[in-house]
Amino acid sequence: MTTEQIPTQNLDTADLLDLIEQSLSRRDLAAASATLSPVPTWQIVQVLERLNPKDCAVMYRLLPKQQAVEAFEALSPELQGELVRSLQDAEIAALFAEMDPDDRVWLLDELPASVAPRLLRGLAPRERDLTASVLGYSQDSIGRRMSPEYVTTHPDLTSAETLRRMRARLADAETIYTLPVTDHARRVVGVVSLRDLLTADDDALVESLMQDAHTVPADSGAEAAARDCTDLGLLAVPVVDSEHRLVGIFTIDDAARILKREESEDAARQGGAEPLTRPYLSTPIRRIVRSRVVWLLVLAVGATLTVKVLSVFEATLEQLTVLALFVPLLIGTGGNTGNQAATTVTRALALGEVRPRDMVRVLTRELRVGLSLGVLLGLLGFGITALIYDWQIGLVIGCTLIAVCSVAATIGGIMPLVARTIRVDPAVFSNPFITTFVDATGLVIYFVIAKAILGI
Amino acid sequence: MTTEQIPTQNLDTADLLDLIEQSLSRRDLAAASATLSPVPTWQIVQVLERLNPKDCAVMYRLLPKQQAVEAFEALSPELQGELVRSLQDAEIAALFAEMDPDDRVWLLDELPASVAPRLLRGLAPRERDLTASVLGYSQDSIGRRMSPEYVTTHPDLTSAETLRRMRARLADAETIYTLPVTDHARRVVGVVSLRDLLTADDDALVESLMQDAHTVPADSGAEAAARDCTDLGLLAVPVVDSEHRLVGIFTIDDAARILKREESEDAARQGGAEPLTRPYLSTPIRRIVRSRVVWLLVLAVGATLTVKVLSVFEATLEQLTVLALFVPLLIGTGGNTGNQAATTVTRALALGEVRPRDMVRVLTRELRVGLSLGVLLGLLGFGITALIYDWQIGLVIGCTLIAVCSVAATIGGIMPLVARTIRVDPAVFSNPFITTFVDATGLVIYFVIAKAILGI
Repeated sequence: MTTEQIPTQNLDTADLLDLIEQSLSRRDLAAASATLSPVPTWQIVQVLERLNPKDCAVMYRLLPKQQAVEAFEALSPELQGELVRSLQDAEIAALFAEMDPDDRVWLLDELPASVAPRLLRGLAPRERDLTASVLGYSQDSIGRRMSPEYVTTHPDLTSAETLRRMRARLADAETIYTLPVTDHARRVVGVVSLRDLLTADDDALVESLMQDAHTVPADSGAEAAARDCTDLGLLAVPVVDSEHRLVGIFTIDDAARILKREESEDAARQGGAEPLTRPYLSTPIRRIVRSRVVWLLVLAVGATLTVKVLSVFEATLEQLTVLALFVPLLIGTGGNTGNQAATTVTRALALGEVRPRDMVRVLTRELRVGLSLGVLLGLLGFGITALIYDWQIGLVIGCTLIAVCSVAATIGGIMPLVARTIRVDPAVFSNPFITTFVDATGLVIYFVIAKAILGI
Repeated sequence: MTTEQIPTQNLDTADLLDLIEQSLSRRDLAAASATLSPVPTWQIVQVLERLNPKDCAVMYRLLPKQQAVEAFEALSPELQGELVRSLQDAEIAALFAEMDPDDRVWLLDELPASVAPRLLRGLAPRERDLTASVLGYSQDSIGRRMSPEYVTTHPDLTSAETLRRMRARLADAETIYTLPVTDHARRVVGVVSLRDLLTADDDALVESLMQDAHTVPADSGAEAAARDCTDLGLLAVPVVDSEHRLVGIFTIDDAARILKREESEDAARQGGAEPLTRPYLSTPIRRIVRSRVVWLLVLAVGATLTVKVLSVFEATLEQLTVLALFVPLLIGTGGNTGNQAATTVTRALALGEVRPRDMVRVLTRELRVGLSLGVLLGLLGFGITALIYDWQIGLVIGCTLIAVCSVAATIGGIMPLVARTIRVDPAVFSNPFITTFVDATGLVIYFVIAKAILGI
């Protein structure tokens, strides 16, 4: 048993994980617990996130009380939700009471709707009101992700007075490093940083220290607001209602959390799968299959369109089998061109660089890009095919490449904008669907051009 | 001209951009300048980023001195680099002197290597030394992205003494909200937050207030460090050398900037294109074509493999043209399955959930997932094809789907790990290449199975 006595506090997370998985597979809970006890909380969190659901619940029960509370707060909402389902009601109520109102809302969003009212009833009235004020905003809005616990100041207060106010609220404010400045009607007129307050003389007025506030309306989209916050390098952004009155504060750590989740979703959907809610290696195979199978089926059904198109041209194919040789090359190139355009525009949409009303500009740009790429590839395709087969086949391949690239880039470019307009996630609607759609269209173009040029 | 007098301070960025582009296209510089003057700096930055390179340089020259300096600091390094090329040497030197050392390094990385020494020579000695200390680390390391300007404290100082130290260094420290705690040998022993310092009694020792520090070695990868920082919601992380001595501090706003850039790169490469360095609508068509054409050519050349494979089986195709009908469907499904696996594993790699040494685990998982998906799709494919054509063709399609899905998921899953092992960006190496590779492999599998079952 002395092999377990190696110091674990300086191991990296993967090695730690290996040790713990070994202990758990031997059902040696004491060793597992000893491995984790000298480790800092942030690393415990990483280990818990990477264990499979069953081991994670076991390991969590082995943590000392205080560490368990700290680790729970740092876990992702999905894992919190998973853990909660394995805990006793009293334990859940205690954890829930300790959380900040905004973190509480993240967790509630993960739990079955029937659980939320029960948990909320268990809270102290003030905490319940704060949580309810955040729950009042719609799921994807920034209001849902803000904290209702903030410290404000006023333009006619001094630096010293503001610092005193702030010290009195230190314990429960979400952040004290950026303070919203409000007028008598609670409207945001600026922000002042703790740094500027500390730099200034005691009797300097906030009015002279504050800066223009970048505010976000509580009903605006959480992703866009998170992106603004990180793009501008702001530690915190005041959230306002339609009358520009302060209702909450949104901090950069929540912004980073939102963006990470959005980007995982986008990445998964562009690859044609649903996002996984836990780390890859700890997700059961069944769940991975489930996250992919629906997409794959839908795309396969879509691809039967290509069988249909080809069977229409079956007679032409029988006459000239050589045409079949180029089918994968042509539709592959079309798919690639379409994917390039779709990926660029989807990313630009996510970053707020392009909006649905830019449809015409995007269309013109992608048509020009697609045409340029098509001419380059078409010339090359003509040359090579003319050399190996004959110049007529070469002409068919060259012309098809020009047409397919132009069509594919255009469709790929506007598809994400269409998706956004009809309120579907652009990432869902773009790459895999474009490939399928471009495959079928490309085949029609190919055979029409072939029939025209070869006169069959 | 009264139409220009509409208030512009409350417009959103896209509308502002429209107004300015209209003014610039009329060459009405006065109107453009008037439109931008009442607008806050963060929005000026968004406008500059979305203008095309020529207009951006023109507009920048129209800004009042102070606003120009502030806007420059907030611009992305790529755009700073672009602007610098349009400015006079004296203007550049002035801007450069005002920047923080870490931001200066970002900019230097964008400029031709010959410019860097000239700019560095123009700096005051202390600033030059600070900048040089950061430039000493390799391009992708966290040392390159840290700030060498920090405030430290010691375990045996009191809260009041620490606050005094901090106030003395307010002007140039990168952050004052998280202070590294070091021992007599400059080794990091913890961190203390300004919040805890303010909460504590004046004579409380730092030792009693500090927490475990999450530190990163200066030569570790910038992306992984940035991800840890945002995942853990830390405002700042101490950067240490191999002896655990403090060399700099890394802040969450820089972490967000690094992750945004990495994610744009990953997204572009998974779509088979090079990342654009400026917003989509302001990137010249020529540059977009350039970012895509090399990839497209490489992939098209790869796809000639499919022509090769098909020409080997040309005789079989001539005998049974019906086999050609299913080619796009089969290779499309293979490509989709491969992409799903590649996207999941690439993302898991980026998030640090999977490492190259997990190769065998990933391989086994993806083989099982691919087999499950293949059996589901294969049964369906058999059923439908058997009904429409005949049961033998159905059997060919069903078996091919099972084999292709298993192979595609396995290749898709391990390809990103292979890429990481041979130090290539996993995103480069995965989706588009997998599609091409799976296309060719899938065709071989298809014809081998067809020949075996149909006995031709």
